Amino acid sequence: MSKLAPSARTTVKRKPDRARYDRETIYAILDQAFVCAIGIVADGLPVVVPTNYVRVGDRLLLHGSTASRLMRTLAGGAPCCVSVTLLDGIVFAPTATGHSVNYRSVVVMGTARVIESPEAKLAAMRDFVEYVNRGRWAAVRPPTDQELKATMVVELPLVEASAKVRTGFAVDDDEAYGSAWTGVLPFAWTPGAPVRDPRGNAEAPVPDNISRYVRPQ
Amino acid sequence: MSKLAPSARTTVKRKPDRARYDRETIYAILDQAFVCAIGIVADGLPVVVPTNYVRVGDRLLLHGSTASRLMRTLAGGAPCCVSVTLLDGIVFAPTATGHSVNYRSVVVMGTARVIESPEAKLAAMRDFVEYVNRGRWAAVRPPTDQELKATMVVELPLVEASAKVRTGFAVDDDEAYGSAWTGVLPFAWTPGAPVRDPRGNAEAPVPDNISRYVRPQ
Repeated sequence: MSKLAPSARTTVKRKPDRARYDRETIYAILDQAFVCAIGIVADGLPVVVPTNYVRVGDRLLLHGSTASRLMRTLAGGAPCCVSVTLLDGIVFAPTATGHSVNYRSVVVMGTARVIESPEAKLAAMRDFVEYVNRGRWAAVRPPTDQELKATMVVELPLVEASAKVRTGFAVDDDEAYGSAWTGVLPFAWTPGAPVRDPRGNAEAPVPDNISRYVRPQ
Repeated sequence: MSKLAPSARTTVKRKPDRARYDRETIYAILDQAFVCAIGIVADGLPVVVPTNYVRVGDRLLLHGSTASRLMRTLAGGAPCCVSVTLLDGIVFAPTATGHSVNYRSVVVMGTARVIESPEAKLAAMRDFVEYVNRGRWAAVRPPTDQELKATMVVELPLVEASAKVRTGFAVDDDEAYGSAWTGVLPFAWTPGAPVRDPRGNAEAPVPDNISRYVRPQ
């Protein structure tokens, strides 16, 4: 896949050896997560809000109520910064300051654009559902016109984006290693046992796409 | 514990039924995670960076290289917004738009202050290590004067903060429930098997605080 040309804003300055600008790495991180922290400036102050997203091609789609301040701010053309972080492990080093975390993160900067057409909005709603759970859309009632009207969908082009990746063990000097155990404790965001909604169909078996839920790795 | 008086900035406007302002809820969320997304305004634009934190009493401590733009911006008295999100599950609803996620999130707004004294900085470094892994500090080499000088520590008072919590099943209308399975797929951030650093002490057993690693729930 193509490389993104790092802009002044998306060039990684701290620990540049951890920087990645290829779409393959950036998209793989985006596709494993589905919640981002989005930053905007409101009344001159930074505001960061966690929200759901879906990547569709070279765009990130975000949605929310037409009444939400975040959505209205994005719709007004305000610049935003989307941050996605996957925490992969804790790095245990021989020195206090050598401790670290293994992670993969992406930052996307830009300006979003409202998706206006009902057809494109409906397609986006399908993408939101399918992105979190492939095959779910066919099993549920699609949005009504009323629900579509109450939802704002915006798209953010994946033009200014970069990734930062830390893997592996500590990087302390050899002489720092002493008696302590050192290594990495890996972490993963893992599903538990599905819990049935008592209001739902008591006869419906848990579908495979939920009982064996996996995110793209 | 006491309640925080919600300010204009930390009053939850969207889904106010999910808002929590008590320190107990806010601190429990902060204490389970240790990575936040921190937002600042740089050259008029929003920038969101993932970073490690520790809560100590009624303050959040953040640290980084004295060369980092984020740390220098915070040290300069710029307003910041810290966002912490724990993703607890996916909510499967009978309608497309009824789908949701269960989560617990905290937002903290304010202005950080640099911790200058070497003693307070050393204590903070201990807090950073112990917060991620209780008992680790005693096992590793403490920071040198040089390492302390290269690290900036700032504190952010927990004054303007609020939490947002979603739990439970879908809230769709009764008539929307059809043949589909509905319920919650719970998620947790779980440790795997520790991986030994080949450069470390090959005889050291994995300590209990790593082999049985738990975050406060």
